[in-house]
Amino acid sequence: MLDIIAFDADDTLWHNETLYSITQAKFAELLAEYHDPSSIAERLYATEMRNLGLFGYGIKGFTLSMIETAIELTDGQIAGAAIQQIIDLAKAMILAPTQLLDHVAEVVPQLARSYRLMLITKGDLFDQETKLARSALGQHFTHVEIVSDKSVASYRALFDKYKIDPAHFLMVGNSLRSDILPVTALGARAVYIPYHLTWAHETVDDHDPQAHGYVELEHIGLLPALIEQSG
Amino acid sequence: MLDIIAFDADDTLWHNETLYSITQAKFAELLAEYHDPSSIAERLYATEMRNLGLFGYGIKGFTLSMIETAIELTDGQIAGAAIQQIIDLAKAMILAPTQLLDHVAEVVPQLARSYRLMLITKGDLFDQETKLARSALGQHFTHVEIVSDKSVASYRALFDKYKIDPAHFLMVGNSLRSDILPVTALGARAVYIPYHLTWAHETVDDHDPQAHGYVELEHIGLLPALIEQSG
Repeated sequence: MLDIIAFDADDTLWHNETLYSITQAKFAELLAEYHDPSSIAERLYATEMRNLGLFGYGIKGFTLSMIETAIELTDGQIAGAAIQQIIDLAKAMILAPTQLLDHVAEVVPQLARSYRLMLITKGDLFDQETKLARSALGQHFTHVEIVSDKSVASYRALFDKYKIDPAHFLMVGNSLRSDILPVTALGARAVYIPYHLTWAHETVDDHDPQAHGYVELEHIGLLPALIEQSG
Repeated sequence: MLDIIAFDADDTLWHNETLYSITQAKFAELLAEYHDPSSIAERLYATEMRNLGLFGYGIKGFTLSMIETAIELTDGQIAGAAIQQIIDLAKAMILAPTQLLDHVAEVVPQLARSYRLMLITKGDLFDQETKLARSALGQHFTHVEIVSDKSVASYRALFDKYKIDPAHFLMVGNSLRSDILPVTALGARAVYIPYHLTWAHETVDDHDPQAHGYVELEHIGLLPALIEQSG
């Protein structure tokens, strides 16, 4: 019955939000003489949301939003050296090794023996390709799709492109908004594996697996058994 | 014989380098009290090349390189307001309407009636999707591939992915380095249509169409006749 298993990447296969979270803490330190951490975080999030339609997802857009926020919050008084430190934070994020989540290194090759695997991730093309190359998981995926957004329309376009029957498709991810709800809305299966951190933009109110036809797992190590049971 | 015609996008279908060139001139104005335009341009290019492996192609990476160059060239003295102006230049580039080159609006729909058309462009995923959407050309392309780099390896990967026989494939573009030489190296056909501006990074020394098996045209309006002649 099941033919293709698709995985989200950030915070599903490898740690990502942790890296943003560490960077934000350093960004707040940089502005500590001007404002408290929580108002800095709030203002940065507002800038990111305002810029999302222009910059899209990813480290470079996030960095431009950090710089813009730093200028705003200091009334333009921020020093050139501090702006350079923000750019250096971005470079450190880009260069950070890809850290796989627990169980991923075993589960992905195991499932690849029985199913076609896909990677469907949003964000910056160049960042994501770099992370995939460093992960050493690339050989297990038949298709890799880096998309600018994950909506019902973008999944439908992928189903058309690869002639995928939703009845034979399963998506695994950590974002209800991006990985789960648009997929179940198209009649495909989805497994939700929450990550301990969620970016505010990815949160949704509704969390009822039964009503939305998805299964929730505690970690990806439980996925092969679930797939075996449900056939 | 010919089955798929693939087009580069930037400076092949729509103007792009012009936009970078205008932005660079404004960037030089912003730093005019510190340095002359040619040394600013030289330093910016050096920063871009140093950062290319981290940021990849596209407006956001270019902007981070402009900011870094401005900090360097002013020994960190640049004002926050000037950095904000650089970010605003980036936003203006992102928001700029997609301006098609002459003949594109006629030639693309015309060729789409007889051949499968592909768009193969490098750069920022989000930028390129936005430009394609604004171009109103999207409906004519069977496949759109936004890649992080255009090398022999990346074209070979696309040929494998779409089961393309190089003998039935033609690539049209303005960069010998990215659109022409890797394609003819794989045994496919290529038509080189130079744009009046070329980014230094895209230039190559060798320009002999016969030796490298490509055809050079003055403008894209001449493409349908060439294809008809050569079958």
